Amino acid sequence: MQKSIEKLKELTKDVVLLEHAIATLSWDQETYMPPKAIGEKGEQLALLQGILHNKITSPDIGKLLDDLGADDKNPAGKYESKISTDSAYIKETYRQYKIQTRLSEKLVKELALETSLSQAAWIKARKKSDYSIFQPHLEKVLNLTKQKAEAIGYKDTPYDALLDEFEPWTSTKEVADIFQSTQPWLTEFIGKIRNSKQVDDSFILKDFNISKQEVFGRKVLQDMGYSYDRGRLDISVHPFTTTLGRDDVRLTTRYQKDFFKTGLFGIIHECGHGLYELGFGDSVKGNLLASGTSLGIHESQSRTWENVIGRSYSFWKYYYPELQKYFPENLTNISLDDFYKGINKVEPSLIRVEADEVTYNLHIILRFELEQELISGALSVKDLPEAWNSKTRDFFGIIPPNDANGVLQDIHWPMGAFGYFPTYALGNLYSAQFSSVMEKEIDVNGSLEKGSLINVLDWLRDKIHIHGASKTASELALDITGEKLNPEYFKKYLENKYKQIYNV
Amino acid sequence: MQKSIEKLKELTKDVVLLEHAIATLSWDQETYMPPKAIGEKGEQLALLQGILHNKITSPDIGKLLDDLGADDKNPAGKYESKISTDSAYIKETYRQYKIQTRLSEKLVKELALETSLSQAAWIKARKKSDYSIFQPHLEKVLNLTKQKAEAIGYKDTPYDALLDEFEPWTSTKEVADIFQSTQPWLTEFIGKIRNSKQVDDSFILKDFNISKQEVFGRKVLQDMGYSYDRGRLDISVHPFTTTLGRDDVRLTTRYQKDFFKTGLFGIIHECGHGLYELGFGDSVKGNLLASGTSLGIHESQSRTWENVIGRSYSFWKYYYPELQKYFPENLTNISLDDFYKGINKVEPSLIRVEADEVTYNLHIILRFELEQELISGALSVKDLPEAWNSKTRDFFGIIPPNDANGVLQDIHWPMGAFGYFPTYALGNLYSAQFSSVMEKEIDVNGSLEKGSLINVLDWLRDKIHIHGASKTASELALDITGEKLNPEYFKKYLENKYKQIYNV
Repeated sequence: MQKSIEKLKELTKDVVLLEHAIATLSWDQETYMPPKAIGEKGEQLALLQGILHNKITSPDIGKLLDDLGADDKNPAGKYESKISTDSAYIKETYRQYKIQTRLSEKLVKELALETSLSQAAWIKARKKSDYSIFQPHLEKVLNLTKQKAEAIGYKDTPYDALLDEFEPWTSTKEVADIFQSTQPWLTEFIGKIRNSKQVDDSFILKDFNISKQEVFGRKVLQDMGYSYDRGRLDISVHPFTTTLGRDDVRLTTRYQKDFFKTGLFGIIHECGHGLYELGFGDSVKGNLLASGTSLGIHESQSRTWENVIGRSYSFWKYYYPELQKYFPENLTNISLDDFYKGINKVEPSLIRVEADEVTYNLHIILRFELEQELISGALSVKDLPEAWNSKTRDFFGIIPPNDANGVLQDIHWPMGAFGYFPTYALGNLYSAQFSSVMEKEIDVNGSLEKGSLINVLDWLRDKIHIHGASKTASELALDITGEKLNPEYFKKYLENKYKQIYNV
Repeated sequence: MQKSIEKLKELTKDVVLLEHAIATLSWDQETYMPPKAIGEKGEQLALLQGILHNKITSPDIGKLLDDLGADDKNPAGKYESKISTDSAYIKETYRQYKIQTRLSEKLVKELALETSLSQAAWIKARKKSDYSIFQPHLEKVLNLTKQKAEAIGYKDTPYDALLDEFEPWTSTKEVADIFQSTQPWLTEFIGKIRNSKQVDDSFILKDFNISKQEVFGRKVLQDMGYSYDRGRLDISVHPFTTTLGRDDVRLTTRYQKDFFKTGLFGIIHECGHGLYELGFGDSVKGNLLASGTSLGIHESQSRTWENVIGRSYSFWKYYYPELQKYFPENLTNISLDDFYKGINKVEPSLIRVEADEVTYNLHIILRFELEQELISGALSVKDLPEAWNSKTRDFFGIIPPNDANGVLQDIHWPMGAFGYFPTYALGNLYSAQFSSVMEKEIDVNGSLEKGSLINVLDWLRDKIHIHGASKTASELALDITGEKLNPEYFKKYLENKYKQIYNV
């Protein structure tokens, strides 16, 4: 059996290398590629993705998984190994093998084509705020997505198969139960904040010198423990983090006048993702388990750094005097308290990516509910904008003035990524749950006030990063906090934080 | 038959895409990669190279080549096609297929390993100027290189097989004959120059502001017709040009105080390579014939731009006043005539890459003669430094003070690239031959004096670039100049140019 596992690791090594080669081409596409290179870049990526598909679905891997007794019931196989990560290795290989073998080449190609057309239509539709341009494309993509779910298979509902791509080993029902208990509480909490005195964040909209933004941002990255020995920070239209090698995890950002939302907190967010990918321990580094164990856990890392750390009072107690030195023209007359309140302003809004950490999860729950209805057929693509607007009114008390600021705002559905949205909210929930333990085990605030971020990194690395995908999201939660995902931590986190800011 | 060719083109499409994907990873390695990423980058490249090897040696391609009647005697196959580039397509596919199928996996891996070790040893040896560190590695590499030549096969001499990798369809004898007639003439010509009054190029060594260097360099690139729509200019330790896609050809440079040799003329040189790769016509673009037809022809393009154009009087008649505006502190007191003479100073020297265009080919002939003797066994690796020094004295009248400035100066042998050197000299010869026709067909000097470089590009594109590898080097020479490569053009070019500079 040990021999089969070794062979499996040997065969899947190329899968990881190919993923990184693909990431290199994609990174280039988003950062430095000359504009006219786009056509062939797509062909190169399609070719490499095809080769990757052949590698992970190779009959040799199928045979080994068979020998190890891996199937839908026992994805980790039937035998115990002496090495603790081995069953996780089989399980993850089986998961990828299963998905890839069950999708026909025809369906994969159709999805690639239709989502590409659909994204192009979406860009046009959003520009003109005209849903009708996008509607026929979404119908096709949705139809293919349903076929995809059927091909992969599921236990309870087709949405299970879609969710599994982004949040493995978590069921639709688990997510729905958690969201259902969160939504009314959030709506009520936001209502209380609305009835309190609003904070002033007008300083945020001032003009912040871009080269100083970069220097300050890079200083924070360095303090977080990010090193240019194993990474880079470049510029792209949409910020992202990507892994090009086991010692090569790169971040991107964009610099705009608006320093805080898209600039500084964006960098800190991406760095949170990056530190996760850079922190995998020796037993998973460079192999198939060297990845975030789920997008929810990945997002928990970025959100911990962005919100729990980066928007905390203690963090700014250390950094704010420094920040004032960088931007005296904008910040000299703003006190630390007012600054802290300003960067934590809560306000119902229409656009998800600009939402504060209180209202954010409502944006997600809205999408999660709608996409489930789309997949089940309870909601038609034609009726989607109306459903969107009506839910927005229910959740936030506001109605989008047009579809560009409503149903057309996100790229996920145009690209066929149904099942992706919930992971953002799960990230916030996991972040609060993990952080509550971290704060008991180390003196987080004391460290932050001294500008020492490394204690936080060490804790996250030791508890989460080091494991890569060798523990599932639920296993991590159980091991670290003694229970599965529990939204009460998030509620408590928000209550504690915002009672100081809004007196609620 | 037409069907077989279409199928062949279909199957080899992936070869081109993979080559470009590999080029992307290599470009990243030389430009933006974080230092610690190097280990896995090597694994990724080895994997992709293995996949590429499997593609080009696929039995399907073998079968098609067989059907088309391609063999060592008839590499272009036995049938006539209606499409003129088809036989070239078969011939080039057969050439690559033959080389790749004849090299055993064992030999390829040994070569990869030993040349990698040998390069590391060479770096150390050059640093300490201690040949003994490098000698045992060169012995191994040479031995494997001989095995490689035997495996590939050849007509007259093992060197034929090595040369073919870089200068296809050109024999060792052809090159040797040409070099033999060139060497004494060059030695004599250099002797005459030595007896003339030396020109003053001290202004070249002044300090040239680096950001102004870049602006001026980019201005010349633009005037040459290079566009950032389909390319980039980045920084790397060693300047190079690389093709990442049919619409993506990138250059690199390095900026040093020494503006001219490594800076401006380096950029112009690389852009000459780049324009060739960007100029392939529709019938070859994006397929296996979309490459320089030989390194000699490639070098003819870079050298035409660098020397025939970039070091011409007419070119500077237009650009020199502009250059003086950029660097008044260094150039105000230097006349156009003195500048022109300075950038064309001829002087026997020890280092190939710093050599002027007159002495350059002697550096090549020296290496060509020595590497032939190494391959034939007439010269032992142990005796190489002595042979190097003695030939340097014969050719240049000087002896290297140490091996770092002698036998250890180039990376080609450490990396196993025997057969590469002659292509540099062939490039200079082809450049002179093509240029003599270009000057008859268009008013080169008139154009340059007006700062219009596009006429030159159009001519090169129409006569050379457009064909890619669909015409061999010899076919190009015949079609353009009515004869095969003839070194008399180069001699005439040098005589014409240097009689004005040195009165010889």
